[in-house]
Amino acid sequence: MKIVLDAMGGDFAPAVNVEAAVRTAREFGYEIVMVGRQEVIRPLLVQYNTANLTLPIVHAPEVIEMSDHPATAVKTKKNSSMVVGMEILKRGDADAFVTMGNTGGALATALFHLGRIPGIHRPALSTLYPTTTGWCLILDIGANSDCKPEYLLQFALMGSLYSEKVLGIAKPRVALVSNGEEETKGSVLVQEVHQLLKQAPINFIGNAEGRHIPTGFADVYVTDGFTGNVIIKLSEGMSSMVKQMLREEVMRTAPGKVGGLLIQDAIRRMGKRTDYEEIGGAPLLGVDGVVIIGHGRSNARAVRSALRVAANTVDKRVVDAIEQGLARLPQIKKVSAIESA
Amino acid sequence: MKIVLDAMGGDFAPAVNVEAAVRTAREFGYEIVMVGRQEVIRPLLVQYNTANLTLPIVHAPEVIEMSDHPATAVKTKKNSSMVVGMEILKRGDADAFVTMGNTGGALATALFHLGRIPGIHRPALSTLYPTTTGWCLILDIGANSDCKPEYLLQFALMGSLYSEKVLGIAKPRVALVSNGEEETKGSVLVQEVHQLLKQAPINFIGNAEGRHIPTGFADVYVTDGFTGNVIIKLSEGMSSMVKQMLREEVMRTAPGKVGGLLIQDAIRRMGKRTDYEEIGGAPLLGVDGVVIIGHGRSNARAVRSALRVAANTVDKRVVDAIEQGLARLPQIKKVSAIESA
Repeated sequence: MKIVLDAMGGDFAPAVNVEAAVRTAREFGYEIVMVGRQEVIRPLLVQYNTANLTLPIVHAPEVIEMSDHPATAVKTKKNSSMVVGMEILKRGDADAFVTMGNTGGALATALFHLGRIPGIHRPALSTLYPTTTGWCLILDIGANSDCKPEYLLQFALMGSLYSEKVLGIAKPRVALVSNGEEETKGSVLVQEVHQLLKQAPINFIGNAEGRHIPTGFADVYVTDGFTGNVIIKLSEGMSSMVKQMLREEVMRTAPGKVGGLLIQDAIRRMGKRTDYEEIGGAPLLGVDGVVIIGHGRSNARAVRSALRVAANTVDKRVVDAIEQGLARLPQIKKVSAIESA
Repeated sequence: MKIVLDAMGGDFAPAVNVEAAVRTAREFGYEIVMVGRQEVIRPLLVQYNTANLTLPIVHAPEVIEMSDHPATAVKTKKNSSMVVGMEILKRGDADAFVTMGNTGGALATALFHLGRIPGIHRPALSTLYPTTTGWCLILDIGANSDCKPEYLLQFALMGSLYSEKVLGIAKPRVALVSNGEEETKGSVLVQEVHQLLKQAPINFIGNAEGRHIPTGFADVYVTDGFTGNVIIKLSEGMSSMVKQMLREEVMRTAPGKVGGLLIQDAIRRMGKRTDYEEIGGAPLLGVDGVVIIGHGRSNARAVRSALRVAANTVDKRVVDAIEQGLARLPQIKKVSAIESA
């Protein structure tokens, strides 16, 4: 297993990236190619015992920063760790690419340098989302603000295959995000997609309202990238709001303060149940190769998890499965009402 | 002040509706017209001291149930409390209409029986949403799944006027929900709306991501009814998830259980900060009359609050303000890219 790691991507890069590379190479025997500024990577690497590990550095002097405009950065920063790393994958010199960097940059780089799986209209960004019963997969969470029905049909197939093969869920329950449970509810787009999903070779369980998402109602939620992005960002915001309000109210009285101390462990266990570090990253599905994108604020444990996810996605041949699955999707016969509107 | 109350709408109707009508009539001197099945309303009413109160009952034998299909119900249940009540408002025999019943039914009834304010393309459902600093208004939350730019422009005006006049916020900060803060981010719809809002006579502060909504970043959030519905339903779901997880983890250990008891008051204060009962209801904006829709699970306190909101909306002449405000909106010159796509 040979994984390219964008050593420069993420809020705590390159330190945590190098640490995770060393740990993962030792634990699982992966070869990890670290791409980035060798003058900063090398001094970090020599601090570790790397005997018998294969941890090559490929020098890339530029970095696509979080503030960079993705489409521009891909064209102007040809020597960035992201572009150089993606090209290694494209050449077939590695099995997967992992980054904690600019998500839009990773998407643009993958589209430009890897391309799409033949037959895929648009790739989708996915994420794992914590629920009361475990985790669910949501896609698209931001790659495609405006979608056509056939995009969402493919997102459903890709999400279902990933959930089954990498997350190990038999017959993943796939739901379509809508503003009502009945199949007649939703935007014109969603109503059309609903009909397509009913004919697709997946376990489609119908529409889901927003309230279903945190409950374990489905394993995979399909939506356009605009709505998906609002869902994950709102969830982040609400989670912060609840924490802040609870802290404020607990600190207001003496018994509250004592109680607050006594429930510290419960809060910690709750955090663990929704802990992204264990998850590490989620795939950019539909591009012609395994690309895993992690949180910008990943620590070494999260980067290690992302490298594991990458290896798993390679082992389970998700890209091949998507390519084969496309042939079994219902064909779009009529011109969509959205296009002809 | 004469308010029509749908006595049959809501999970705890008609009992809590009648109780709230009596209390509100006594406290504020309103005349409250209760519309619904007189054979169930009258026995409830006689339990109260109604001396000197004006609480007429208008008989309406049918009820639009929560499970009824709105458009169908409006046509087939002409003797429902919602239709009969809305007709009283339409005739000018009352100042406002309040319901805790089927939201879609209220929307359809208002559109069919009241009509729109001249110049309004589509009415919008609004709601008040709790934040770390107070409350914000979100619209549309479900009346319009597919929107055109000019609809959202009008939603922004209506939300801003309501926030200013009824909620008492000077120069309400209006934000547009998007999947990125920059004005170039968002769907084609959102990008077009952004440009229109920049020219509108409101305090437009730009795009908001989902994470901003619970923070007090803006006073009014404008969005299409599909996204708005996902936002409020997801928030409900997350709130339940957090409560359930916290309870589960607190109950897992003895110190946790003690801590849980000690923070009861803090949790109660937190609940109060996000308590819908105080808010009662939010307006259906854009219809030609004051229509306030409350939660289905409203208790008497929430119904009372909704009646107060109705009176306030009448007093502040929100409908007139919207009609006058429309003239100052930027005109849509070109055909939208969405329509010509």
